[in-house]
Amino acid sequence: MAHLVQIEDPADPRLADYRDLRDVELRKNLEAEHGLFLAEGEKVVRRAVEGGFTPRSFLMAPRWLDGLADVLDRSEVPCYVLSEALAEQVTGFHVHRGALASLQRRPLPSLDEVLDGARSVLVLEDVVDHTNVGAIFRSGAALGFDAVLLAPRCADPLYRRSIKVAMGTVFKMPWTRLPDWYDALPSLSARGFTTVALTLAADSSPIDEAVAGVDKVALVLGSEGHGLSSRWEQAADRRAIIPMAEGVDSLNVAAATAVACYVTARR
Amino acid sequence: MAHLVQIEDPADPRLADYRDLRDVELRKNLEAEHGLFLAEGEKVVRRAVEGGFTPRSFLMAPRWLDGLADVLDRSEVPCYVLSEALAEQVTGFHVHRGALASLQRRPLPSLDEVLDGARSVLVLEDVVDHTNVGAIFRSGAALGFDAVLLAPRCADPLYRRSIKVAMGTVFKMPWTRLPDWYDALPSLSARGFTTVALTLAADSSPIDEAVAGVDKVALVLGSEGHGLSSRWEQAADRRAIIPMAEGVDSLNVAAATAVACYVTARR
Repeated sequence: MAHLVQIEDPADPRLADYRDLRDVELRKNLEAEHGLFLAEGEKVVRRAVEGGFTPRSFLMAPRWLDGLADVLDRSEVPCYVLSEALAEQVTGFHVHRGALASLQRRPLPSLDEVLDGARSVLVLEDVVDHTNVGAIFRSGAALGFDAVLLAPRCADPLYRRSIKVAMGTVFKMPWTRLPDWYDALPSLSARGFTTVALTLAADSSPIDEAVAGVDKVALVLGSEGHGLSSRWEQAADRRAIIPMAEGVDSLNVAAATAVACYVTARR
Repeated sequence: MAHLVQIEDPADPRLADYRDLRDVELRKNLEAEHGLFLAEGEKVVRRAVEGGFTPRSFLMAPRWLDGLADVLDRSEVPCYVLSEALAEQVTGFHVHRGALASLQRRPLPSLDEVLDGARSVLVLEDVVDHTNVGAIFRSGAALGFDAVLLAPRCADPLYRRSIKVAMGTVFKMPWTRLPDWYDALPSLSARGFTTVALTLAADSSPIDEAVAGVDKVALVLGSEGHGLSSRWEQAADRRAIIPMAEGVDSLNVAAATAVACYVTARR
């Protein structure tokens, strides 16, 4: 089982994986360079391990040890045990859910692997907010989508905040980065998917009509701020809109995704 | 027009309305006691004023003055002008969107006023997260809902974070607090609304069937953690579910609301 290591010094170099969790830029660099990601909370830590990710270490306050005893039992890495006050000093925030794990990233699967057998997929262009990425994974998983594809600039699904909002569905739902931005949608069409871009474009049809009777669908979503690039908007096989009341800015991307997934799942 | 007041001292007592914006508990007390709320960002500040709320003051960095010139022109209150660094010291965070306004709350309308002419309303029991409350207002407004009713423990739609996520729709959408938790749903039924509770209860029907052909609908939503109270779940005229994939925890309340509003709007 994981060996418990009592920590008394917040500067202990063994805690390097857990430093400054609120500093997004620092974390992005650190996690990319070391090929790691962080999971937070008993439920999410358990799902990461059950999802087949290899832990590098755990960090928790004593009162969380029991809840994760089964997970710790099956692991051989250190579990750093420290007070909640000390944990807050290291991570830079109050660790509500008490348990953290640092896990090894895996090589991303190929597009073909991710699409194998898939009938409904989500394609995110430049969704830059981790909360939105997490919410989209959660809704996609709940509403029966099979995979998620990310444009090169889309935010990281394995960032701590994405994972938390996704309730760990990022561990189960197959996903990968699209190797090429420019031809991403045509390459999906070539694989037999009808690409349906969610947009406010003038020539878009209501989402239920756009997906009616379509077999393999790739639902394409743009960035929070300005939506899809014109390249993607034009390269999509169809453009679809969620009919909305006048004078409202539109749904946010996570809400729009939930609605579009619901409608698409029932096509 | 608003009179510009240059501020050099972050401790200036005239900035009291803008202190420590990240301290949720402190802000709740301060805002309740002084009957104020804060709007953040050019678009949201403008919407608050256009929504008929009376400003107490504005606070912004010099570069935001031009964008809000029309709003400032129509107001007689002070506009505190200070550097972004100083604004960060006062508020406790980096004010991305540069402009803040403190506005006077208004007395809440009665239930009858809010329901007058309404055909589709949202009823939130204990949604405690300001982001979720804001997202629900935005989706409800975008998808054609007429009003929002809040149980006594639901989070404040005029909290800065709610307003921001709602993109200011909280200023336009009629809403109020339900005077009584226990009989809230029966009192809506007595007013001719069919109350439809969104729940995972065993006797719930798919949402599209639950709302089909219903005239006046009140869509009832529970808390993030444990959903609806059993009182509300049982007191509702109907129980409805959004059909979901197995093994996923369920949609989050904001995503579920977006789907339910979409379906209900097309009943």
